[in-house]
Order: sequence, then C-alpha cells, then structure tokens
Amino acid sequence: MNEPSERPRQSGRPEREPFYLPAGDEVAIFERCHAQHLAVMLKGPTGCGKTRFVEHMAWRLGRPLITIACHDDLTASDLVGRFLIGHEGTRWVDGPLTRAVREGALCYLDEVVEARQDTVVVLHPLTDHRRLLPLDKTGEILEAAPRFQLVVSYNPGYQRLLKDLKPSTRQRFVALDFDFPPAEREAAVVSHESGVDSAIAHALVGLGRQLRELQDRGLAEVPSTRLLIASARLIADGIEPRSACRAALIAPLSDDATLLGAMTDLVELAFAR
Amino acid sequence: MNEPSERPRQSGRPEREPFYLPAGDEVAIFERCHAQHLAVMLKGPTGCGKTRFVEHMAWRLGRPLITIACHDDLTASDLVGRFLIGHEGTRWVDGPLTRAVREGALCYLDEVVEARQDTVVVLHPLTDHRRLLPLDKTGEILEAAPRFQLVVSYNPGYQRLLKDLKPSTRQRFVALDFDFPPAEREAAVVSHESGVDSAIAHALVGLGRQLRELQDRGLAEVPSTRLLIASARLIADGIEPRSACRAALIAPLSDDATLLGAMTDLVELAFAR
Amino acid sequence: MNEPSERPRQSGRPEREPFYLPAGDEVAIFERCHAQHLAVMLKGPTGCGKTRFVEHMAWRLGRPLITIACHDDLTASDLVGRFLIGHEGTRWVDGPLTRAVREGALCYLDEVVEARQDTVVVLHPLTDHRRLLPLDKTGEILEAAPRFQLVVSYNPGYQRLLKDLKPSTRQRFVALDFDFPPAEREAAVVSHESGVDSAIAHALVGLGRQLRELQDRGLAEVPSTRLLIASARLIADGIEPRSACRAALIAPLSDDATLLGAMTDLVELAFAR
Amino acid sequence: MNEPSERPRQSGRPEREPFYLPAGDEVAIFERCHAQHLAVMLKGPTGCGKTRFVEHMAWRLGRPLITIACHDDLTASDLVGRFLIGHEGTRWVDGPLTRAVREGALCYLDEVVEARQDTVVVLHPLTDHRRLLPLDKTGEILEAAPRFQLVVSYNPGYQRLLKDLKPSTRQRFVALDFDFPPAEREAAVVSHESGVDSAIAHALVGLGRQLRELQDRGLAEVPSTRLLIASARLIADGIEPRSACRAALIAPLSDDATLLGAMTDLVELAFAR
Amino acid sequence: MNEPSERPRQSGRPEREPFYLPAGDEVAIFERCHAQHLAVMLKGPTGCGKTRFVEHMAWRLGRPLITIACHDDLTASDLVGRFLIGHEGTRWVDGPLTRAVREGALCYLDEVVEARQDTVVVLHPLTDHRRLLPLDKTGEILEAAPRFQLVVSYNPGYQRLLKDLKPSTRQRFVALDFDFPPAEREAAVVSHESGVDSAIAHALVGLGRQLRELQDRGLAEVPSTRLLIASARLIADGIEPRSACRAALIAPLSDDATLLGAMTDLVELAFAR
Amino acid sequence: MNEPSERPRQSGRPEREPFYLPAGDEVAIFERCHAQHLAVMLKGPTGCGKTRFVEHMAWRLGRPLITIACHDDLTASDLVGRFLIGHEGTRWVDGPLTRAVREGALCYLDEVVEARQDTVVVLHPLTDHRRLLPLDKTGEILEAAPRFQLVVSYNPGYQRLLKDLKPSTRQRFVALDFDFPPAEREAAVVSHESGVDSAIAHALVGLGRQLRELQDRGLAEVPSTRLLIASARLIADGIEPRSACRAALIAPLSDDATLLGAMTDLVELAFAR
Repeated sequence: MNEPSERPRQSGRPEREPFYLPAGDEVAIFERCHAQHLAVMLKGPTGCGKTRFVEHMAWRLGRPLITIACHDDLTASDLVGRFLIGHEGTRWVDGPLTRAVREGALCYLDEVVEARQDTVVVLHPLTDHRRLLPLDKTGEILEAAPRFQLVVSYNPGYQRLLKDLKPSTRQRFVALDFDFPPAEREAAVVSHESGVDSAIAHALVGLGRQLRELQDRGLAEVPSTRLLIASARLIADGIEPRSACRAALIAPLSDDATLLGAMTDLVELAFAR
Repeated sequence: MNEPSERPRQSGRPEREPFYLPAGDEVAIFERCHAQHLAVMLKGPTGCGKTRFVEHMAWRLGRPLITIACHDDLTASDLVGRFLIGHEGTRWVDGPLTRAVREGALCYLDEVVEARQDTVVVLHPLTDHRRLLPLDKTGEILEAAPRFQLVVSYNPGYQRLLKDLKPSTRQRFVALDFDFPPAEREAAVVSHESGVDSAIAHALVGLGRQLRELQDRGLAEVPSTRLLIASARLIADGIEPRSACRAALIAPLSDDATLLGAMTDLVELAFAR
Repeated sequence: MNEPSERPRQSGRPEREPFYLPAGDEVAIFERCHAQHLAVMLKGPTGCGKTRFVEHMAWRLGRPLITIACHDDLTASDLVGRFLIGHEGTRWVDGPLTRAVREGALCYLDEVVEARQDTVVVLHPLTDHRRLLPLDKTGEILEAAPRFQLVVSYNPGYQRLLKDLKPSTRQRFVALDFDFPPAEREAAVVSHESGVDSAIAHALVGLGRQLRELQDRGLAEVPSTRLLIASARLIADGIEPRSACRAALIAPLSDDATLLGAMTDLVELAFAR
Repeated sequence: MNEPSERPRQSGRPEREPFYLPAGDEVAIFERCHAQHLAVMLKGPTGCGKTRFVEHMAWRLGRPLITIACHDDLTASDLVGRFLIGHEGTRWVDGPLTRAVREGALCYLDEVVEARQDTVVVLHPLTDHRRLLPLDKTGEILEAAPRFQLVVSYNPGYQRLLKDLKPSTRQRFVALDFDFPPAEREAAVVSHESGVDSAIAHALVGLGRQLRELQDRGLAEVPSTRLLIASARLIADGIEPRSACRAALIAPLSDDATLLGAMTDLVELAFAR
Repeated sequence: MNEPSERPRQSGRPEREPFYLPAGDEVAIFERCHAQHLAVMLKGPTGCGKTRFVEHMAWRLGRPLITIACHDDLTASDLVGRFLIGHEGTRWVDGPLTRAVREGALCYLDEVVEARQDTVVVLHPLTDHRRLLPLDKTGEILEAAPRFQLVVSYNPGYQRLLKDLKPSTRQRFVALDFDFPPAEREAAVVSHESGVDSAIAHALVGLGRQLRELQDRGLAEVPSTRLLIASARLIADGIEPRSACRAALIAPLSDDATLLGAMTDLVELAFAR
Repeated sequence: MNEPSERPRQSGRPEREPFYLPAGDEVAIFERCHAQHLAVMLKGPTGCGKTRFVEHMAWRLGRPLITIACHDDLTASDLVGRFLIGHEGTRWVDGPLTRAVREGALCYLDEVVEARQDTVVVLHPLTDHRRLLPLDKTGEILEAAPRFQLVVSYNPGYQRLLKDLKPSTRQRFVALDFDFPPAEREAAVVSHESGVDSAIAHALVGLGRQLRELQDRGLAEVPSTRLLIASARLIADGIEPRSACRAALIAPLSDDATLLGAMTDLVELAFAR
C-alpha cells in the first residue's frame, strides 16, 4: 500500500531560467524585500506576467517555488496541514504553506483576494517581525526559515465591489504594480513564446491594444498577453489568422453579440489588409 | 470483501466512431489545440451536439474520454481524489481529473459554469504552460501526460445573470462556437438517430425551427436536436406523430398554458395537413 | 452483530396488479419510451395518480420498482452509494439509483423539483444515448441494464417561482400530462379503494369538484383523489359523513377561517339534503 | 464498556390513564384513523391539550408512545437511524421513527412545521397505502407494523408566513381541530392538576379568558392552560395569587411595558376584590 | 494515556454562600418553583445580578450548579452528549444538561435567546409534567432526578428584533424580573466586592445612574453593576479615580466620540469636585 | 511515527525586552488589571503598537504570551481543544486558550471582533469572578491559573457597521485606548526599527501624517507605523526613497487612481526637495 508520505514531493523548482523582461525596478525591490523579510504583493491585471515574474525571482534567488491558487473554499487546513488517519493512528501532513515555511521556499498565493478571511489571517503572523506560523492543531509554533518569502497576487480592477482585502491585511505587504508591457516588448514575448515571425507578432499586439480600448464599452476584462500567445501558436501551427483570432482571442472575451461584432471587425482589419 | 481499487475501471473509450457532421473548421482547430497544449471551451445551446463533438474528437485522437457533469456541489476533491480509510490505514484514490491527467485522456467538464469556484480554480495550473495538477492533500505535483486535453462546455444564453465564469478563467481557453445545424444537416441527424424517413425528419426539423422562434415569446430554452430525435424515435416505434410530439417535444419545454397552446397549434399544422 | 449487507433487501416488486384506470395513451407511450430507452417525466397535481401509474407500469413491464422521495437534502451520495467503515476497512454500499441501474429496475424520483442540482445532474448521463452512471467515488462507470427505466414526477402548478427544473434537464425527458380523472372514473376509484357505495362516492366526488373550483379564491392546492378516499374510508368505518369530511377533506386543505367556512357550507350542502 | 445497545430502552408507555376530557368526536375519529391506517394531524394553539390527547390515545389503544420534538436541525438520520462505529466495525442503530415502525407504536412528531423538508419527506411513504419506511443507508425497506400510527401536531396561528407545511404533505393527514376548552372544563382541569379550590380555578380561568382577548392588541400568543396551571400550583404552594400570576402568567407572555401594564391591571382586578 | 472519562469532573458546587441581597420575593418563588418542578426564567439587563442569584439559590438548595453559556453554534449534542471513539469502539459521554438531569443539579442556560432552535427544543420535554430528556442517539429516555431544576436567563431589552424566544418556549417558564438594585443596595455591593469605602462607592453608583440615563441618547447598553465594581477595584488598587473610570467604565460602553465626551464630563464632575 | 503530543511546544516567551515607548498610564493600569484579575481590551487603529504593547507587558510580567489571530472560521474547538484519534483511541489535545489557562499565560486574541459569537462566548466565564473555562467535550471545568490574563484587541474605526462586539461582551473588559504616537516618538520608533537616520525618519513620519489626513477623502485606513518602517527598511537597504515609498507606503493603501495620484504628489514633495 502506498502511504502518502512515501510519495515523491516536488517543490516546483524550475529547471532553467524562466523568460522574463523587466519593466522597471521590480527585480531590485523584490530582492531587497527578500533580504529584509518583507512580504510582497503583485498588483495587476490577469495575464500580464505576475506568475512569470515570481517564477523568475524564485530561479534568481535559488529558492523552490510553491504556488497555491486561492479560492472560496480553500481552508486554513489546506494551507497549514492536517492529521490523516493511518494504521498506527493519526499522522500530521504539512500543507503547502507549512512546507514553504520549513524549507525556506517562495510561497506564492495566486489571486489572494479570492481566499476566505481565515486563510488570509493565517498569513498575518508570517508578515511581521515575528515570522511565525502557529500550527493550532499540534500546538507547535514554527519560525520561518531565513529565506522563506511570502508573495501574493491581486487584480485591483476586478470584482472590487464584492470582495476586497482588509486594509489591515494590505498593510502587511510591499506592493509592486504590474501592467501589460509596451508594444515592442509584448511583441517580443509573443514571438518568443509562439514562434510566429515579428510581423504577425506586431499585428497581434496591435490588435490586442485596440481590443483593450473596448473596456469602456463593456468588456469585462481586456485580453491578456496569454490570449495573444494562444492565437499566435494556432497561427504558427497552420490555422488561418482570422480563424485563430476568433477562437483564441475573441470568443474567450465575451458572449455579447454587439461586442463580438465589433471585435470581429477589428480582427478583419488587422489581418485582411 | 471487494475493496474499491480491485474494481474494473472504464475510461469511456467509445468502441466505434461516434457519428458527427462537422459545421466548419472546429475539427482542425481542436486538433491544433491538442497539439499545442491549449485547453478548449465549447460554447453553445443545450443539445446542439457539443458532447457528441467531444466524443468524436476523443475517438479521432485515439484518447480515452472522461466526462464530468458539473454542478454546485462538485468539490475539488471529487475532481482530484481523496483518502479512503481501509483496513491498513488510509489509501489515496484518484479522482476523474487526476486519472485523466495521468493517462493522457480527454477530460470533459460538461456545463462548467455550474461548478463552484474552487473546482474551477483547480483547473488553472493545467491550462497554462506548466500543465500541473497539485494534489494538495498528498503534497504531490503531477505533470500532465503529453496527450492530456482539457475540454469544457458552456451555454452562453443561459443563466448568465446568476452565474458566469470569471474572465481570468475564460482567458485560459480557446473557444469554439456551436449552434444548431442547418435544416438539411439536422434532418440527416434526426433520420440517422431515429430511423424515421426523410419526410418525417424534415417535418420535425421544420417544426423545431418554428418552435425555436418562440424564444422571444417566453420560451426559457428552445428545443434541442435531442428533442426532435426523441419525438422521431417514438414515431418510428408506432406512436401517432402529434401524440409523440406533444409528449416528447412540447411538454418538456414549458408549463405555461398559452405557450403550450401555441406550440400545439404548430404541431397540428406540421402533421395534420 | 448484524452487518447491514446481510439484511434482506426488498426492491418493492408489488405482489398483485396495482389498480389503474388509463386516461389516454399514457400506457402505450410509456411502453414505447421503455423500449426506446427514453426517460419519462410525469407532470400533474398532487394525488392525481402519478405514483399509482408508475406502480402499474412496473407491474406491467415485470420490473422491480425503486421509489425515491426527493427533497432539499438528498445528496448525490444518497442516490449513488457510499463507503461504510467495517471491521475490515471500507466497503461500498450501492444507493437506490445504483441498485436500479444494476438490476434493470424502474427508478422513480418523486417530486424531482425538490432535489438539489447535484442530485439532478447525476441523472443526466443516464438520460442520453450513453445510459451511464459514473460512480465517482470508486472510479467505476456503470452501463445501465437494458430494462432500466428512469421516471420522475413533477407538479407544475406548485412552487414554480422558487424552484424549477433547468431547461437542460427537462429536455432529457419525455413528459406525460396527468390530471384528476373525470367524475365517473374518480367515483369508481373512490368506491373501489374505500368500500363506500356508489351514491356516497358520487357525492364525495361532486363535493371534491366544487372544492377544486375554490383554487382561484385562495386555496393553495386543490383536494386530491387521495383526500376523497380518506373521507370515504372514515365514512365506511362508521363516522358521520359531515364529520368525516371536515376532518379528512377540509381541515387538511387550509387554516384560513373564510375558506374553511365556505368549504364547510359545501360539505353541509353535499350531505345534509 | 457500556455499548449503547445494551442500555435499557423506554418507549414511553404511560403507567396510568392520562387525564383527558374529550371536547367532541376526536377520540372516535382517531380510533377509526388508527383502524384505517390513516395518519393524523392535531391542529391547535400551544398548550391546549394536544400532547395530552395523544398520550391518552396511546394508553387507550394500548400502544407505546414515541414523541419527537421537531426543530430546524432534526435530520432524517435522527429519525431513521445511523451507523455507529464499534470495535467490530459499524453497527446500525434505529432512530425513534424506525423503532416506532418496527414496534407498532404511536409516533408523535410535535410541532412538525419546525422540521426541515427532508425530515418531513421521510414520512411520505408511511402515510399512503404502502406504509413503507425506506432505510436508504442500509438498503432495507420496512413495512410498518399493523398498529403503527403516525401523529403530528401543528399550530396554525403561529409563524405561518415564515414556515408552512407543503400542501402535498398536509393532504397526507386527517386533521383534528383543537382549541382551549370551555371555561367550566378548563377550570376542572386547572383544579385537578394543581390542587387549588374551585373558586381560585375559576378566577384564574376567567383571567385567562380576558388575557386571550388581548391578542388583537399585540400579544404574540395567548396564555395556554399550562400557564394557568403553573400559576395555580404556585398559589397552592403558598405564593400570594397576584405575585404568582405576575411570575407564572404575565411575565412569560411579553416584554412590552404597555401590554404588561394592561395585564397587571387585569390580575389586580381578578384577585384584589 | 488519559481517557477523558477518568478525569475529575467538577459540577461547580460553590464552597461558601455567594453574596446576594434579595430585591423582593424572588427567593421564595424560586424555592416554590423548585418544589413544584417548574422551570424558571430570569429576565433582566446584563450584569444586574442574575448569575449571582442562581449561584445563591444553588447554594441555598444544596444542589450543584451547571452553567452553560448559550450561543449560535451550541448544538443539541453539546448539551445532551455524544459518542466518542475509543480503543474499544464508541463510548457515550454525557453533555452538561444530561449530567444535570442525572445528578439533580441546577442547570443554568445563560442568555438562552442566543441558542439555536434545536438547542431550545431539547429543553421542552424537561419543562412539562413529563420531565424527560430523550437521548435520541442512544434510544434512552431519561427521567429527571427529583431535584433537577432548569433555569434560563434572558435580556429583554437587547437584540429583540433579530432574535427572540418562541412563545411556545416562553410559556414553559415561570419568569422572575430583575433590574439594577436601588442606589443604597448597589453601593453596598460595590463596596463589598471591591473594598473601596462608602463615599467612593456612592460616587461610583451616582455616576452609574447618570450614565444609565444616556440610553435614550444612543448608548447601546447601560453600564452594569459589574463595570462599577471593576472601576472600584482599580481605584482600591491605587489607580486615580478618573483614570480608572475612563478605562473600566466609559471606554467599554462606546466608541462614539460625542457619547464618550459626554460620559467623560460626567466622570470629571463625579470625582473632580 | 511522530505523534503530535511528542512535538516541542513553544509558548512564545520573548527572549529579550520588546521595545516599547509608553504613551500614558497604560502600563500601570494593565499591571493593576493583571493583579485584580480583570480582562483587558486594547482599542485602536491597525499597526499603532497594540501587539507590541502586549508583548512588552508579557515580558514585564514574566508570563508566556499566546497569541490567537481571530477570524470568521475560528471555532470554539480551535480555542479550547479537541479529541484526536490515535492508535489507542481518542486523546484530548488542549487548544491555545486552554494552554494559557493552565499555564497562567497572557492569552491575546487579536482583532476579536472578527471572531464568531461562539468563540467570544467561550471567553465569558473567564472574565468574571469565577475565572472558569468549561471544557464541554470532556466535562471538565478548569479554574484559571492565578496569573492567567485575557487580552483582546479591537479596531473601533473599522467595519463597525457589519460586525461589532455585543455590549454584554464589551462590559467584561477594562479598555485601554491606543493611537499613533506623537511625531517625535514615532520617528524614534521608525529609526530604531529600520536603521535609517533621524532626518529620513522624520521625513517619513511627516509624510505619514499628511497621508493620514486623507482619510476624509476616501482612504479606507490610514498608513500605520508599520508601513513607515517597511519604507524605511527598503531605503536603508539602498532603494531610492520615492521608489521605496511608492511600493511600501502608497501602493498598499489604495487602488484608486485619484488617491494614488494625490499620495504620489505628497511623496514627491517629501523627498524631492
């Protein structure tokens, strides 16, 4: 019988340097926060490179990266750990946050605003000078390993009315602003990730910028660099550009017929000339 | 005693090619998405052939198909797996998503918009370049088998005000639009699936199109091809056409007396001439 | 110690033909649906004979009948089955739906609109051409036995604003309309079930029809044939008719003094002349 | 170690005839319902004698009485039973409803309107001609013992807007109306239960009738016979009548200063002359 | 290993007579209720001496006192008991109410209005002539020991709109009204409990009376005798009176700047002269 | 196998005196409350030094400090303890509150207003003269060790409409008011904690005071001393002051473009001259 503890554990240490083009002093500030034991919040829209940045920093700092996608039903126990019943009684199994605290890993909570208050509150004693993680269930109080780093991401333009971080939580993080890269840099990323030539990459990026201007006309969220890359990969693999853009760029953005029509017109303009 | 792990497991690999008439370039785009490791969303109304399409693609790509009907109470554990208590302690049992990830199957989440956020968020790391499935409960991080493919379906015209996918989730999928087939093709499907002759198939399809125009008059959802086939099968089995249509086509659509009256008139017109 | 699996199981196969007077072609259509593997929905008011009809059809088709009363707290596990902890570890116990699927029984979900979405969604793959029941907890996918038949009941005039079936669920069923039988037939039923003579049966049925006309004056639900039979049985057992009708026919219908007064007047008229 | 099954079980069989003064033909109708296998609902205000009536009928019919106080959190398992884990695995323990069904007891669900739908729905198959109790967890279907009788109580004037029984549930019961007894009979009850003399009993009953008229002036519920008896018992035990009435009759009825003042005036009038 | 049942149990029997100054005939009425098996409700504002009164009565009647603080999440099982899993299977552990019922203790449910309905309903059969506590989980029905007494407390001026006891529950209790004692008696209590001299005690009590008049100006709840005692104890221990009153009397009452200013003025007036 | 009870337990006794500059007589009042067995509430905004004060007092009184961050999902069992299943049956494990009660520690519930009522109610018997902690699950009633001290923190300006402590809970605590320290003292703290020179510390504190005046213009919460220290530490570690203030002081406070612009202007003014 396979007991879970005998299974190999991966801490997500990337094998080669993740591709990342810096936009400002975010690398330097992150390194100083790591040195100063300050937790970091990455603010910015979906798909603008926050996850890639944290992968890059983990590689750069030589630390394992443990990523946790936050959601409404993530409990404190999912983060911290729980007792499992085995054939000799109960056995404690660390959660991903506890593993990160013990190993001195980067622990990245993606979309932290989605988590419940009890999950977020568990982070508090890790973000001040104490750097402690109390394991209430065992009575232990863990001190974080020296190179442990807490990172969270947060999309400020999205669902702000329904959910938001408490101010007393926000003030526990140094915040770095992220946005879509400038056109030249975004085209370089699209080309690097998909294999399309520079002309198609620039056409896609130009189209993406036009679509992002539709936000004031009802688009719930603007297209990410991720969508441009998906379209480019279909084009590179032989799909006709307008067809690829309809499936990979426009259809994921909306179900509204008027908006879809306007976006289709922009696709036609971008590739039919 | 039968322990659950000793039971045979079926991964739903269909025995013969599922019947499917393509409407456009959806087969080619799906194949490129499969090759490019891009997740796919099938958008369209109930009963227009999305499920049949994914069965067809699984057969075409030679992959097993694992289907999961989404609903409000589907938990992340239902997808990923859980520990069961056995006579030698706890034992891990993979959920259907984990099996698909290990076997390189097509995993089809039907009506994904019905699922809770925690279920949907579990899919996120499987939809980007990482293609990972973290098993939080065991501390394992699975890398998806090369031919694993994630597919979801979504009905955009239905319950949009109460529930919708988050934009950050939608942007993780290439989206293919589906709609009811043109009359000629729909009649061919009805005839093929039920055994009625072409005249009756065309009469049913014509009736279906008239009923679909009632959506603006209060019909919650228009009749699917599925309903036309059910009516046709009762007719082929000896039930009088108007009686078959009342039971299999009209009564399932509404309880409203006015609407039922209008629909009955259309049935009388279609088969009494 | 009695372990639950050693207990005898009854599948509710009735010993003699349940009494049923057909109203139209519902018996023929049900038989064709059974032959064609089409699921059936019985639509109609409380106590008009839907349950009796399904008992009759089970007897007629020679299949066991498994009935499940739906409610808000019925979980998918209640339908499908669960693991129980025994002295040699966990053991799987089939739920009533799974037993019906294995045995090829008629499975009747009474008042299906009361069930939660997750319960209803479990039925979906059983209602299309696949006829499958995935047992998520064990990883098994059951194919329904050839003579398995899914039947649900639904009261369209009741609680429609708060709860309703999703259109994508409704379209999975052939629907048969039920209503109270005509006076002559209802009197025959009342007399057969209670032992009162034809005069009293006709008086009760006439009274029932007058009470049913009060629905527009605030009666939440009209009196069923069941209530007429209960009154008749008390009369047959020696209770004075007006007293029997007050207890068994009127008091169950309302607590409103005005309505109760009006109904009492009708009772007096029916039996005091 | 005491295993729960080894504990003595009491089915609440009263040792001597419970005191009950009939108001009409309720005893005869109840006996006919018992003979005819019809479930019974007792309708009436708090403390007017419904519980005493059912105790009386249990004694009269020579059946054990099992009483269940209904509330929001009473689950179907609380009624039907559950598996308990013992040192040789799981063991089934009958709930009070199941015991009543097996033993042929009177099962009395007090204030049934407080129960959740899933609790109430469990009663349905026990109330029609089948008289079955399906034990979903074990797969058993119990047929009720011949003398099993289901009785529920229901206070129609109370909380009607928030909670009510479904019409399809109400129509499963023969309903008996209860109200406070006439003055002479209520004074006899008060005197019998407390030991006060007839003069004080009549003074208390007269006072109670005056207080019941305050319902239109804001009293949430009128004083029950129970409150009159409590006051009488304090008086019989030496407490000054006005003091006893303030503590046992008025203070339990309201916290509103105006109402309390009006009620105090009535007490002074009743005992100060 | 310490099994819980081997631990010493305390039933809270006070060692010496708890200090209590009677306000009226509450002691006599409580004793008669105890003799007559009538449950008692103590009505009055926070901190006016209800808890002290019940401690006094327990000492006077020579019964152990078991106190239960009610709240939203107190379940019926918390009151009645539950099965615990031990090394020889499950074992029943009595809850505090069950222990009180067996031992004939006074069981005091503090702030009963905070409890959920299922908790409150469990008390019902203990409050009428039956004096029974059904243990649904074991099938046992306990008859209360002769000297068992149920007591609840209730603050009528507080949270009345959101939560209230059901009338059918209230009518099960004899109710005793409590209020703050008159000035002379309250000063005696403050002096006795804190050790301050009579002048300071009278100054504090006078200040408390002035603060209680602010209720109409927005104070959510007036200061209890408890707060006056806390202030007095700080003064007796060397804290300057105005400073002690700010921390122990005013700051606990409100966060509103205007109210705090008005209260501070009253403190200055009371001690600065 | 590691059983949890064999793990070392830390009670968070600080190794050296935590740095704290008193603002008034809060140290003396706290010491008197400790001597007088009075519970203490620390009222004040986020990050103004409440936690540091309680650490200081624990060091000063020579008691261990046990800190519990309160949140919506903290249950009474999380505070008090629970049974865990081991290989010899169940075993009780104390929660952090129970450990504090046994050891005579300071128990600090941070942001107590976030906790549910059931958590808060558990504290009640610890705050009056009884100083008891009933362990309902084991039947034990613990008397607090003589030097046990309960402390809670509470931010009055924050979320007051949604959540608030019940008055009957507030009146159980002596309350100490906290606010940001005066400029000179705050600059000393910033300099001591970060290592920046006095000029930069004063510039940061001056900036912080200007930002705090923006509360009336829509800032949800004003910047804490904590944020000033984080900015100072980045500056001390080589980050340009304006860049450090943008990341560590401004970005954590708001996502509103107008507010961010106004705050950026203040940063430029503070460091660009």
